[in-house]
Amino acid sequence: MRIEIVQTIEEIRQEQIVGRTVVVIDVLKAASTIVAALGAGFTSVLPVETIGQAQGLRTEGVICAGERHGKKVAEFEYSNSPTAFRAFKQPGKQLVLTTTDGTIAISKAARAAHVFVGCFLNAEACIREAIKRQLDITLYCAGTRHEFALEDGLAAGLMVHRARQLLPSSKVCDLGIALEASYLQLGGALPGLLLKTATGKRLAQQHGEEDVLYCGQLNEFDIVPTLVNKYLTKATI
Amino acid sequence: MRIEIVQTIEEIRQEQIVGRTVVVIDVLKAASTIVAALGAGFTSVLPVETIGQAQGLRTEGVICAGERHGKKVAEFEYSNSPTAFRAFKQPGKQLVLTTTDGTIAISKAARAAHVFVGCFLNAEACIREAIKRQLDITLYCAGTRHEFALEDGLAAGLMVHRARQLLPSSKVCDLGIALEASYLQLGGALPGLLLKTATGKRLAQQHGEEDVLYCGQLNEFDIVPTLVNKYLTKATI
Repeated sequence: MRIEIVQTIEEIRQEQIVGRTVVVIDVLKAASTIVAALGAGFTSVLPVETIGQAQGLRTEGVICAGERHGKKVAEFEYSNSPTAFRAFKQPGKQLVLTTTDGTIAISKAARAAHVFVGCFLNAEACIREAIKRQLDITLYCAGTRHEFALEDGLAAGLMVHRARQLLPSSKVCDLGIALEASYLQLGGALPGLLLKTATGKRLAQQHGEEDVLYCGQLNEFDIVPTLVNKYLTKATI
Repeated sequence: MRIEIVQTIEEIRQEQIVGRTVVVIDVLKAASTIVAALGAGFTSVLPVETIGQAQGLRTEGVICAGERHGKKVAEFEYSNSPTAFRAFKQPGKQLVLTTTDGTIAISKAARAAHVFVGCFLNAEACIREAIKRQLDITLYCAGTRHEFALEDGLAAGLMVHRARQLLPSSKVCDLGIALEASYLQLGGALPGLLLKTATGKRLAQQHGEEDVLYCGQLNEFDIVPTLVNKYLTKATI
């Protein structure tokens, strides 16, 4: 089994998608919000690109969440905020989520054999499930504003590390080896470290510090959001 | 002072070159060969793109070296091999060097305020000299076959680490932080680790193991190859 890392939305190539299991990693914050929402009892999360699309989907059983440039969309119930769902007590709802660029990677990966969504909150479940599918794996970091994002790279590094422990025969690309080492060096200082990343700093300035710290929690959920017909639901694991 | 990492030849953008000090990093092996050649007494190294160009430049004072797809160019005295220059005893010669893609990054960086060539063999000298120039720094990893190369990333990580020690106020991009951590985690196992990288493995299979191990030596030379009018010569440091 080969494990390859892609580090920004732009870089992914068809051969890194087709016939593979792709884990879309966007720690701050789309992936973390999706995991937290499914953990809070939403039946599914539908990532959409525009605010208009989200509004068009509103019905009684649907909650809308999203942000533009870090700020909650005014008409929506929630921002792209994992901590917002901690007190959510209405099981059975659908979530429609739109973010500045966090959902683009998910749609770019749609042609993969399996598409999962991962972050620190569900890293262990994600990599275990990916290994079970027995295909080559692409860890697809969304990055931030077209740049490598440290938090996504470290989550990928953690997944590589666990994959190599669980399946020592797996072959990892050079970047995967580098990021595994980064995680082993820096992972002990999570979640505070996330506040020092480019995105973490920006979010903290926008009063999103609580979210950033929450996104650095390891394996809070045993949930693997899995894309089926544009909807993300919990994989059976 | 900002320090930014570029990780493959294709990715560099104009704003990462103009007005900056660019360190072109190609551990296996163009940069290591250039450093070793200047260390062996060559007055300059002229990187050229084609074998024909190199042959056209041959005169009594010129030695040609180069490879194509890992093999020495038959007509030339030397391959792209740093160890080949250890026994070289004719000071005052010029070296003309052509490699499959190792010299492309140097020409791409030519418009920078300063262009240096770096690797493990001269990492300390390189980053000290770059800091002295007091401009923002781009550590420009050549990569291998359009992919991130672990050996280049680790050398960049080492330079970031030393830069942050020497100049704690320097600001480093997310990838720089990740690679510094990779170096701190893995750097103790150099040079053997280089044999496990994608390029290192390939070179070792081509009987280049001695070169690979040599390229993992730290700070063997206090030499900073500096580009002036297409020629690389030792910077005055």
